Amino acid sequence: MANLGPGRPRLEQRRRQGTTPRAEILDAAAELFTTKGYANTSTRAVADAVGIRQASLYHHFAAKDDILDALLAETVAGPVELAQRMRPEPDAAVAKLYALALADVRQLRTARWNLGALYLLPELRTERFAAFRRRRDELREHYELLAAESAAAAEQSDDAKILPFRMVETVIGIRSDEGAAPADTERLIPDAIVRIVGHGAEIARVRIAAEELLTRLGEVGTEPA
Amino acid sequence: MANLGPGRPRLEQRRRQGTTPRAEILDAAAELFTTKGYANTSTRAVADAVGIRQASLYHHFAAKDDILDALLAETVAGPVELAQRMRPEPDAAVAKLYALALADVRQLRTARWNLGALYLLPELRTERFAAFRRRRDELREHYELLAAESAAAAEQSDDAKILPFRMVETVIGIRSDEGAAPADTERLIPDAIVRIVGHGAEIARVRIAAEELLTRLGEVGTEPA
Repeated sequence: MANLGPGRPRLEQRRRQGTTPRAEILDAAAELFTTKGYANTSTRAVADAVGIRQASLYHHFAAKDDILDALLAETVAGPVELAQRMRPEPDAAVAKLYALALADVRQLRTARWNLGALYLLPELRTERFAAFRRRRDELREHYELLAAESAAAAEQSDDAKILPFRMVETVIGIRSDEGAAPADTERLIPDAIVRIVGHGAEIARVRIAAEELLTRLGEVGTEPA
Repeated sequence: MANLGPGRPRLEQRRRQGTTPRAEILDAAAELFTTKGYANTSTRAVADAVGIRQASLYHHFAAKDDILDALLAETVAGPVELAQRMRPEPDAAVAKLYALALADVRQLRTARWNLGALYLLPELRTERFAAFRRRRDELREHYELLAAESAAAAEQSDDAKILPFRMVETVIGIRSDEGAAPADTERLIPDAIVRIVGHGAEIARVRIAAEELLTRLGEVGTEPA
């Protein structure tokens, strides 16, 4: 345990992701928060993992909760933006719902660290994270609107409209329990959502329409899972 | 902030649940773990919340992780036992799946504290909690067997068999985000599971069969949600 000072060699440096100090801090914090726990991780431990002085870390983030806030924001920014870009498109609601779920499962599944596991932290219910909660609520509303519209198109009650958003987030628990979520969750979860909103008979067609929509919007093409 | 010693009046005593000291410790710990966080809670804080000396707490639990282990065990013991008692019953797999999901959603939804929120703690991936993880895997296997059998009966591929267990646990995130999960999740979630395993056309019949099965097994009757 010698050589623990801030000036020690940056042993972890090579595997840190990100080309800026800020990105390296976020990557190290994401690893520590998801593997050691948020409360168990000090800003000093984050600085040590990056190989910088704590004072340098404070230049980028004034406090540990600012790092958490930045990490959480990343998990919803992409899907919220995608939902907004889908809005004016002429596709059926169920195709948009499938496309949103597919893209969201993919980012939750393939992100380097399983940050969604932090959603259940009691800290997130404090005022400090009100802005993040609003942003996540915004994403949830996009899901609920598309789910309600899909159910209506299938002449079904919309009372299950809260479930697709929750269904997508099950990928977080799968990753946490099994170390990784299998690639086929990118198909299984959106397929299950289509059944829940009453379009079980048209899954194959909905999937093709969703993939076409994602391609049109410039999202990375979907490979067969 | 005077009078903080172990001998101070037991202010929280009246609202503590449980008639034994052990049950009071578990209730206080469940509150603190779910509202302040596991890492943020000391055994001293638990003893203080019960109004006992820390030495008395150690008489019941040697360490904080023993308290967590006992609390987690409670969340899976009931459903595992129910799944075992269902096994010899003559009902269709999909009715058993509905009944298990309904009973499980109900206990997760109505338990005094949202203990499922602790499933994502990094601490749970350590050797200390291997026995709990095995027990929860056992529950998961019951769900997967019933889901696979239900899908086969609907002449559908069983590749979504991992989802019903995950779908049930979405009630944990709903509670965490909204403070409480609405009563109708006891119908919505099992209904969604029936659709996922390919029995969407028979939901009403499956629900009646499941309620009849639960009554036969002596589970508390299901009120309309």
